[in-house]
Amino acid sequence: MTGCYPIIGQTWVVYPQTGEPTLIVPAQEAYLAEDCSLDDVRPYECGRIGDPTPVETCARLLRQVCQGKGLVDKAIGYEDSPEVVAPPQAAAEPLFVGQATVALLQEAFGSGLRPADELFTQLKSVKTPAEVTRLSRTNEIACVGLSVFKDEAQPGRRETEVAAAVERAIYSRGVGFKGAFSARAWAQVMSGPNTETAWYYPVSKERRIQPGDLVLIELATVVDGYWSDLTRTVVAGKASDRQREVHQLVLDAQAADLLAARPGARGDEVDAAGRRLIVERGLGDNFVHHTGHGVGFRYHEPRPWLHPDSRQTLVVGHVHTIEPGIYIPGFGGIRVEDDAVVLREGAEFLSHTDFGLD
Amino acid sequence: MTGCYPIIGQTWVVYPQTGEPTLIVPAQEAYLAEDCSLDDVRPYECGRIGDPTPVETCARLLRQVCQGKGLVDKAIGYEDSPEVVAPPQAAAEPLFVGQATVALLQEAFGSGLRPADELFTQLKSVKTPAEVTRLSRTNEIACVGLSVFKDEAQPGRRETEVAAAVERAIYSRGVGFKGAFSARAWAQVMSGPNTETAWYYPVSKERRIQPGDLVLIELATVVDGYWSDLTRTVVAGKASDRQREVHQLVLDAQAADLLAARPGARGDEVDAAGRRLIVERGLGDNFVHHTGHGVGFRYHEPRPWLHPDSRQTLVVGHVHTIEPGIYIPGFGGIRVEDDAVVLREGAEFLSHTDFGLD
Repeated sequence: MTGCYPIIGQTWVVYPQTGEPTLIVPAQEAYLAEDCSLDDVRPYECGRIGDPTPVETCARLLRQVCQGKGLVDKAIGYEDSPEVVAPPQAAAEPLFVGQATVALLQEAFGSGLRPADELFTQLKSVKTPAEVTRLSRTNEIACVGLSVFKDEAQPGRRETEVAAAVERAIYSRGVGFKGAFSARAWAQVMSGPNTETAWYYPVSKERRIQPGDLVLIELATVVDGYWSDLTRTVVAGKASDRQREVHQLVLDAQAADLLAARPGARGDEVDAAGRRLIVERGLGDNFVHHTGHGVGFRYHEPRPWLHPDSRQTLVVGHVHTIEPGIYIPGFGGIRVEDDAVVLREGAEFLSHTDFGLD
Repeated sequence: MTGCYPIIGQTWVVYPQTGEPTLIVPAQEAYLAEDCSLDDVRPYECGRIGDPTPVETCARLLRQVCQGKGLVDKAIGYEDSPEVVAPPQAAAEPLFVGQATVALLQEAFGSGLRPADELFTQLKSVKTPAEVTRLSRTNEIACVGLSVFKDEAQPGRRETEVAAAVERAIYSRGVGFKGAFSARAWAQVMSGPNTETAWYYPVSKERRIQPGDLVLIELATVVDGYWSDLTRTVVAGKASDRQREVHQLVLDAQAADLLAARPGARGDEVDAAGRRLIVERGLGDNFVHHTGHGVGFRYHEPRPWLHPDSRQTLVVGHVHTIEPGIYIPGFGGIRVEDDAVVLREGAEFLSHTDFGLD
């Protein structure tokens, strides 16, 4: 929420109720804070032989900041135990808040420290206009990846080859795009019978695409800390009537969900808008998952949740996926997923592609 | 350590002192357990509308396993607060052990539950021969990536383009290589002046490689949960005398470290073997980081640590990097990094490339 996406993840922000917030970052990452929303940025040295560990240095800096702002023993909320997190840029080795970090915070801030996870979840679910602009950029870069997917999803290619080509495009074309410091994607491609289970977190396999196969991509993209989550399904060749019919049903459901996603609408109502169409066609049991979830600071956020059991209410600034899918044994799976922002007059998609099913 | 690399990370193993260990996995991931070291694999359903959450299901299964093995209120060690972790296959969204998970474990196992992080760190630092075989496979796939790096590191290419091509090669050629289920890489490429700070966790930028530039790659690779960490430096063209001289010094230091890495050697002694050569040439201040660290179940493991301050002793089965580097303002940075296994007679590299500096 600071606009600064850490590399190693040893970055801290102290945000007082009144006065300036402070960002503490490794000196080597200070350039990432250049166009973030905070002015008081304090870089610290680390990593050289002889430097204290980041933990020691950060404990000292946090104590300083806390004393400087008169926060000792005041009520300080912190993000305590988010068991699911977004990785930092160094996604091969994420850091997270464990007992050592909590002890460090307690030492710095004193007796007023308390978990505030629910507050953070709420705050993060509503995106500011500036954040929506950043999420649009992420979706724009992700859609470059989707068009590479469309070109690569040809008979004879392996699922892994297609997925790897999409990730490559996003990494190599995304960094520098409209000033982006970083861009990375996780693409999973399933084809033919592998699409039948593409509703679970899927993985790309060695399988070679066959003519007429359904080919589905599940694509996570992160650009400077702003995430998108998109899915497309295409046919490797010309679609059969049945493929076209099921695909159109998914698109119709998605359009109905989008229309229903207005401020004040409940998650179960939005879910029902599209699900109803699928149920009417006798395929209700084949739409096995939720209609959508929050997205933006993470690949999947818990709010808003669009699901038959959801009682959450949409508000302006919510950003969420709309992703109906139909999975039929012996036929395959078709899902289409876009990211939408809830505005005063209704929801709008942040993601767009102009290719069809064939 | 089970040999099963989770996709979403909702996988558990219960390992009693006597009797069979039990692995609990999502049904969709059960195929990953096929050639793991455990026989008692219990798949559970999750993810469909109407399924209980993985947390509810796992709490129930863990209680069952605990009762079945007679472990209620016995001493049970668990991995509690590893603040740095390896991500699961779904690396875009890692799960961690937070307070909710600890509460779940306490409910299942009762009063004997206690953190055992130090024990896990010890156990993980020593690799079995079967694990070393897996790590060799990872290094083999990673070295395919390094040879792509060598081919791509040409004048005119962007750092991001080179890095993305390496990641693509590892993903698309790694899955299926000698039976691998999964393969993924994180490549960072720095060129010219950007190599001067390549000792910090680096990121690839838009910069185009210039003729005669030093080009350095930092490469993390994971194949079915087994990690390697490699670095190469090349010149985009023909190396200058000075580039060749510094590169040779780094190679000499690395060779001296390898010779010193014998069972019983202390971390600071191994570090000193190579560092001494660099210090003798007046470049000691330019070798700003450790000589090496453990690697295998993570990208960086804390044991063994090869550093002037390390008092850890090498034992047979340790796998660690050897990565001397020299960073000179106005000249650039050169690092070479390989992964070595400590055997009875001394250490051997698991990684090999046959290209040179030019």
